[in-house]
Amino acid sequence: MPNAMKLTILGSSSALPTSERYPSAHVLNAHERLFLIDCGEGTQMQLRKNKIRFSKINNIFISHLHGDHIFGLYGLLSTFSLMGRKNPLNLYAPENYHRILLSHLLDFDIHLNFEIVFIPLAGKDPMLILDDKYITVTSFPLKHRVPSFGFLFREKPAERNIIKEKIEKFNIPGIRIPAIKKGADYLTPDGIVIKNSELTIPPPEPLSYAYCSDTRYFKRLSAFVKGVTVLYHEATFDKSMDDLAAMTGHSTTLDAARTALEAEAGSLIIGHFSARYRNILPLVEEAKTVFSNTLPAIDGRCYDILNLVNPLEKNTYL
Amino acid sequence: MPNAMKLTILGSSSALPTSERYPSAHVLNAHERLFLIDCGEGTQMQLRKNKIRFSKINNIFISHLHGDHIFGLYGLLSTFSLMGRKNPLNLYAPENYHRILLSHLLDFDIHLNFEIVFIPLAGKDPMLILDDKYITVTSFPLKHRVPSFGFLFREKPAERNIIKEKIEKFNIPGIRIPAIKKGADYLTPDGIVIKNSELTIPPPEPLSYAYCSDTRYFKRLSAFVKGVTVLYHEATFDKSMDDLAAMTGHSTTLDAARTALEAEAGSLIIGHFSARYRNILPLVEEAKTVFSNTLPAIDGRCYDILNLVNPLEKNTYL
Repeated sequence: MPNAMKLTILGSSSALPTSERYPSAHVLNAHERLFLIDCGEGTQMQLRKNKIRFSKINNIFISHLHGDHIFGLYGLLSTFSLMGRKNPLNLYAPENYHRILLSHLLDFDIHLNFEIVFIPLAGKDPMLILDDKYITVTSFPLKHRVPSFGFLFREKPAERNIIKEKIEKFNIPGIRIPAIKKGADYLTPDGIVIKNSELTIPPPEPLSYAYCSDTRYFKRLSAFVKGVTVLYHEATFDKSMDDLAAMTGHSTTLDAARTALEAEAGSLIIGHFSARYRNILPLVEEAKTVFSNTLPAIDGRCYDILNLVNPLEKNTYL
Repeated sequence: MPNAMKLTILGSSSALPTSERYPSAHVLNAHERLFLIDCGEGTQMQLRKNKIRFSKINNIFISHLHGDHIFGLYGLLSTFSLMGRKNPLNLYAPENYHRILLSHLLDFDIHLNFEIVFIPLAGKDPMLILDDKYITVTSFPLKHRVPSFGFLFREKPAERNIIKEKIEKFNIPGIRIPAIKKGADYLTPDGIVIKNSELTIPPPEPLSYAYCSDTRYFKRLSAFVKGVTVLYHEATFDKSMDDLAAMTGHSTTLDAARTALEAEAGSLIIGHFSARYRNILPLVEEAKTVFSNTLPAIDGRCYDILNLVNPLEKNTYL
């Protein structure tokens, strides 16, 4: 199992979209499973533009019930249905959304031909909400004007890689290999213990990605995402606007950077930019004064979580 | 008052948007008042792309409660509010939408800082729903799977144009001019009647535009839009698919053309194309076999209702 996590930003705007920036939506590709995180208006058009296959999306995560994070969901669900989807869809959203969704489908005469499995988000502690062969997903509470949740996607540790030469050298029978890959030592027929560390090399470090949607700064957040490979954190405002940020339950560039620093994140991607910023470069520069490995979210860009490259280095416009 | 009606197509797709076609939304500019007709997902981005000023939109017309005609409304209302709108907004929609809208604003924590004046659409007969200085708007029922309405926008007849030389010739006092412009004859001090037709020339014919949203063909529709300058009519399917059209409550190219013919419309614009058609040229050709003056709706195109030019003549791609 190779490390494999790629993130595509479909929307990097806050509530007011601009001509270059759509409202929030991220797609995380982890081992060829696609996880859609938030679904602002126009997500289905952005998916199409970015040639992302609708049929590979089986899990949608909604951070909170503000329009710029969810108004694309109704259209997307209709489109799934019109495209003949039969596979169930797991929908993770704040608990009160289930009622809202059901009455909405009724009001708009929408008859889905697939099942929605609703997983409610609630509570004040991290919650394991998905656990499959390759990854786990944990939700954790944020602090916003309405209940809001972040999501942490973690690869499971891969098995250790066995060194072929050692199999031959110690004549290890095949039946013992799975245990050794999991970390067991090998006991030879002569009763000699060969340490696992001599037989195997460790797998690559598991990758992880955390999505911190609308939130004001709070100390405990960094504990929720401790050691994450790539942290996405909203940075709606520049550092001079911390009053407005506090009033609206949002973060400044420095808030985002501080959380990344305290979490000892590998890298920070900031986004959810207010429409007042045409040029987002100064926002990135501000964040860098606290956390140097900061990149901007840019609509339509794909980020390799393992080998993160600053999209600014790839392009001349912003 | 010069004739002035321009139509911008923001979305020409049916339920499933494609990479070139957004869901339904039209903007009619009548004497610099902007009327937004239907509001599919992404309408606010399309308005921005087409540099249409949000603040000039004071009337929104929703034909029916299917997502591809309304899922852009919530985002647009939020955006109006975030942009500081104070002016009331007139919203014309099927009567049961008022309840849905109010509960939606509550569910999504949307606090609009402007008033929505809700005008319910209902009934089986045409209904005058707007009457201002320059135009009238009439709604009329369509036949679809849910209650659906069309809209007829009509310029009011302008006043007659008085011939300057005649004012001098008959020495007409200024106080009599307004009556003459409205069609009165002029009685000279000598008691001679000068016929109005000798004093004035008629104003240009009032323009009109009708929007026929999702509907199957029915005979009475042409009476609702009799003599309209430009008729927009949905044509979701090609002529071979009349079974599917009947089943889904939609029209084929020939249905649209037949209504245009029976209504004695000046021109026909067809749209709401199914995503199955990448190339819409054959659909236009089909409609032309019944009604020759047929044009396609193309996203982002502006149509002058007075001097309608086929957009196909302006461009090479479709």
